[in-house]
Amino acid sequence: MSPGDGLPLWLGLDIGGANIKAAHSNGRAISIPFELWKRPSDLREMLCRAAGLLPAADHLAVTMTAELCDCFATKAEGVSAILGAVSEAFPGRPVAVWGTEGRFLSVEEAIRRPELPAAANWLALATLAARLLPEGPGILIDIGSTTTDLIPLKDGLPAARGRTDTRRLQTGELVYAGVRRTPLMALAAELPHRGEPTALTAELFAATLDVYLTLGDIPPDPTNDSTPDGGPATVEAARDRLARMVAADRDSFSAEDAVALARAADEALMARLLAAANRACRAAVGPPAGAVVSGSGSFLARRLASRLLPPGSPVRSLDDAWGPLASQAGCAYAIVVLAAEQEPSLP
Amino acid sequence: MSPGDGLPLWLGLDIGGANIKAAHSNGRAISIPFELWKRPSDLREMLCRAAGLLPAADHLAVTMTAELCDCFATKAEGVSAILGAVSEAFPGRPVAVWGTEGRFLSVEEAIRRPELPAAANWLALATLAARLLPEGPGILIDIGSTTTDLIPLKDGLPAARGRTDTRRLQTGELVYAGVRRTPLMALAAELPHRGEPTALTAELFAATLDVYLTLGDIPPDPTNDSTPDGGPATVEAARDRLARMVAADRDSFSAEDAVALARAADEALMARLLAAANRACRAAVGPPAGAVVSGSGSFLARRLASRLLPPGSPVRSLDDAWGPLASQAGCAYAIVVLAAEQEPSLP
Repeated sequence: MSPGDGLPLWLGLDIGGANIKAAHSNGRAISIPFELWKRPSDLREMLCRAAGLLPAADHLAVTMTAELCDCFATKAEGVSAILGAVSEAFPGRPVAVWGTEGRFLSVEEAIRRPELPAAANWLALATLAARLLPEGPGILIDIGSTTTDLIPLKDGLPAARGRTDTRRLQTGELVYAGVRRTPLMALAAELPHRGEPTALTAELFAATLDVYLTLGDIPPDPTNDSTPDGGPATVEAARDRLARMVAADRDSFSAEDAVALARAADEALMARLLAAANRACRAAVGPPAGAVVSGSGSFLARRLASRLLPPGSPVRSLDDAWGPLASQAGCAYAIVVLAAEQEPSLP
Repeated sequence: MSPGDGLPLWLGLDIGGANIKAAHSNGRAISIPFELWKRPSDLREMLCRAAGLLPAADHLAVTMTAELCDCFATKAEGVSAILGAVSEAFPGRPVAVWGTEGRFLSVEEAIRRPELPAAANWLALATLAARLLPEGPGILIDIGSTTTDLIPLKDGLPAARGRTDTRRLQTGELVYAGVRRTPLMALAAELPHRGEPTALTAELFAATLDVYLTLGDIPPDPTNDSTPDGGPATVEAARDRLARMVAADRDSFSAEDAVALARAADEALMARLLAAANRACRAAVGPPAGAVVSGSGSFLARRLASRLLPPGSPVRSLDDAWGPLASQAGCAYAIVVLAAEQEPSLP
């Protein structure tokens, strides 16, 4: 318990394969990049570092997607390794693990039934986001760096059909594409270049970050080198990376070529998201009449909502409802709120 | 000149971004894996190592595709760096550089006009391969680890329309897909899993090597760890990698699931190659009446030929015509032959 107001202080951790997100019950949140699959043994240290950037907390709530990383032979092994690192990083502190049944598990139960904590973070976010649309059919559009969740909502509750990521990839509720990390080769087999359909190179030359840097949706950040070639996240460097997707270079690929290719890639992504959202909603709640948008790709989520919904439909933003930091770490924030609510009955 | 028979001895080098291939005029050839984009400064040493595996040679013939690597800011810079490494590795020895005008260039001319040596190796192979089909319209189907060349042939000569890789990606003559290195995310947005269309994860979890290991077309090699996760090239490990493409793991993805997913991926690749081959031939020579197949993916090239050609059409194999080693390093072998032929007029 905190000495101040008598309420326990919660730290929420959303442990992904490329980012660790942390939120504190005081409303602050952070996201730090960490490529877990490259150095899984550093996870404990990175968790400590993330926690050190926020105030102290008595209790921990944990959700994850990193168990799918190929450094773990199976998801069960991944869940066990990740929760082991959490226990080592925060010895003696109570840990509640979010599961796809919509309740928290003890560490022991989570390790025994790894299918429950595996990739459960979307359900925490959807449970909280659904409250922003208390009536009728709706959709949560949460676009991150790597993936998009398209969760049908009904009368203030999630109405998703999938529980595992495999099933969610079938229902349209999970699309493995986001606004930063998705390689262009995964978006399209060919895109127009100078008016002609042009097959793309299948190399990690460019990603959606380069698309949205070029289109001005993501601001340049010369200090960010989490790019396909390790170069800076600038418009100029993005052009070099996009050029290679059609086997060109800056000598033969103009700034106009870059904008045209980026627009076409954005349209390919939008078409994929639109098809998935329609598939997800059609079978679960029917045509959505409102949307909640969130994630670091909320700019794109708003555009998708405007194509998906009838004109004038409500579009609520987690940025507005929870503040931008909480929205950047939305799932971590959501488990903090849910854990505090469910605290009396936690394992 | 060689002291033996009075003919000069040639060493041909085909310098790619993932492999260096070398062929000697005595008919021997080798291929060594080298990820140039990760350590470009080691190129000189790797060239010496490759040459050391073959007999000594008086003259060098060079062709390349590695100038597209993102460790080089432009192709011009790449051509210059690669030829610099060649000159350092073999000081004082004459170097002839193959170009897309179908003739050899001096190192100086190649550096001055980098668009000529850039990605020119396909034309050397096609020039030699075309002689195996001396009459009528045909096609060279050269499937490698990373890319496929689909070169229209006419009366014993190449009839390609593209000269740059960008143009070749438009004509269908170059498809950026092969039988080992192509990530599954680049092959398809979704594939059937247990009878349902399932969106694929967009991560470097599995590649076409895993598809053809699973289907038995490529023999397992436990010592080969040039795989997406660095694990062995075995059927068992391939299953783990394929499972991740649908967010599953070996606990939830059977050997039958692996075969079904691999078959679907193979069909997606075949459909893409068939469409590109038809596009390439239609505009250049009309329907092909014969094929030459080559490359480490010649097993797939034969299947493509059987779908593309009228029944009973001649299908010639570079494996048979030149021997398997020369075919594995086909472009390197081709420039050796062409250089020896053109020797009196070389720069």
